[in-house]
Amino acid sequence: MDIKIYLKEKRELVDAFLKKYFGSPVLPAILSDPMAYSIFAGGKRIRPVLALASYEACGGTADEIVPFASALELIHTYSLIHDDLPAMDNDDLRRGKPTSHKVFGEGMAILAGDALLTEAFYFLSSHSHHASGIRSSAVLKIIREVAMAAGAHGMVAGQAEDIQAEGAVQNSENLSFIHTHKTGALITVSVRMGAILANAEKRRIASLTRYGENIGLAFQIIDDILDIRGDSAELGKPAGSDERKKKLTYPGLYGIDPSMRKAEELVQGALDALGDFSHKAGPLREIARYILQRTN
Amino acid sequence: MDIKIYLKEKRELVDAFLKKYFGSPVLPAILSDPMAYSIFAGGKRIRPVLALASYEACGGTADEIVPFASALELIHTYSLIHDDLPAMDNDDLRRGKPTSHKVFGEGMAILAGDALLTEAFYFLSSHSHHASGIRSSAVLKIIREVAMAAGAHGMVAGQAEDIQAEGAVQNSENLSFIHTHKTGALITVSVRMGAILANAEKRRIASLTRYGENIGLAFQIIDDILDIRGDSAELGKPAGSDERKKKLTYPGLYGIDPSMRKAEELVQGALDALGDFSHKAGPLREIARYILQRTN
Repeated sequence: MDIKIYLKEKRELVDAFLKKYFGSPVLPAILSDPMAYSIFAGGKRIRPVLALASYEACGGTADEIVPFASALELIHTYSLIHDDLPAMDNDDLRRGKPTSHKVFGEGMAILAGDALLTEAFYFLSSHSHHASGIRSSAVLKIIREVAMAAGAHGMVAGQAEDIQAEGAVQNSENLSFIHTHKTGALITVSVRMGAILANAEKRRIASLTRYGENIGLAFQIIDDILDIRGDSAELGKPAGSDERKKKLTYPGLYGIDPSMRKAEELVQGALDALGDFSHKAGPLREIARYILQRTN
Repeated sequence: MDIKIYLKEKRELVDAFLKKYFGSPVLPAILSDPMAYSIFAGGKRIRPVLALASYEACGGTADEIVPFASALELIHTYSLIHDDLPAMDNDDLRRGKPTSHKVFGEGMAILAGDALLTEAFYFLSSHSHHASGIRSSAVLKIIREVAMAAGAHGMVAGQAEDIQAEGAVQNSENLSFIHTHKTGALITVSVRMGAILANAEKRRIASLTRYGENIGLAFQIIDDILDIRGDSAELGKPAGSDERKKKLTYPGLYGIDPSMRKAEELVQGALDALGDFSHKAGPLREIARYILQRTN
């Protein structure tokens, strides 16, 4: 199997759903324009694809949970819009395009983020999606887990620690908190979403959780290495920005080579976690390996 | 019955729940401090109290749905924090206290708002609250409706229109859009929440929706009148700020006396909507009347 083709197919499933939603006049244009601008700014849909691949690994058919998976992309996109704000990371470019506040102004960028976050819970709770025997109790469990992963127990706490840590003494405890919360929690819940919606056994959900935690951290480490070594054109933003902002990062604290080894170990841990799964977990395995080969 | 005593009792129910939650170490301190600062900055808990009163009007016991009702206050508080930001209304004072970004900085204020919004959906989806036979399908319906009322279909759209309309030509269509979206939607869904969780008949939910729409608009009109005529000390913010910011308001567009008459008509419409309800809707009736007597 070619993982690039798999990623493309699944990304297209998510994109088709999002295009249909943002292309219909259900939302007032004043907000749907800035929401759509960031949603269609070239995201790789990694979190939704992980949810779909995990659902497949547990015996489901990806099409059935596209609206749920797409909610993860709304949350990820909102977090990028808010992270880029002048009061946070103050970034003018994201994936090679002007950031939301550069195009729509700060006030509208804040509101577009707020709207995307809220819309994610609308996607997750909409009855029309609940075909294929997905139970209301499983949906409620997912909503609760996504809220924990995205909010003050997870991603927002990581971002708070991140902006407070900038320029402060670098410390492995802070770094671990930032990684597990800022990026790890949402990636892990993406993988769990697929398993929970597929009504997988507890043991399998636990294995997939371990997979998610491992690839979440590996993904972040590679991200930070790419920020140092990467090509600005390919990254879509200036390389070296973490160092200029004195961001607490893995390679900054431990060096590039030890960080790369750590990422490799984590990917191996993710593969080990899938030991009991059939060939249906093939895409999850390939995604884990692919993380080490990313160039953008 | 003394409505002030009723409002105080119900406010205390909500406050006790919120104090217990924010007093326990479930959230990282980096965020729970700014979240709690705004949550306990003197809010009147009108939206939660409306949900509780509506639940009682449909035969329920208020204690059973306090976590759901409290979620509405998290959403209302997040919206105030973001509205006060320099990129929005740029307000330094709220209820007589420095606003979140004055105390914690802009970045942390944005994150505290994001966290409160997300936490609201955690409150709504938490199994531990689902005692008293409230069904998962009713909870999912509530989550969907709250997301619609709070997000790009509702409150956030109203705020977007509001910041774009500042200083622009005043127009009754814009004004109506702003009112129904920015404040009306969340107040209406608060009233609907009580009825839906009580498993009320469709006809009753429709009546309560009409009640909510009427008092929502009456509440906003009185708010705008108080901004013109009010006492700064009692309001906790400088009176006349809407006019200075060239905000589109009801009294600004139609004058104070016609606006007051409109508010009275709306309150009467709200009372009419409750025509079929028993004495259990007494608090809802008194709340509607009380809106016309507010001084802060």
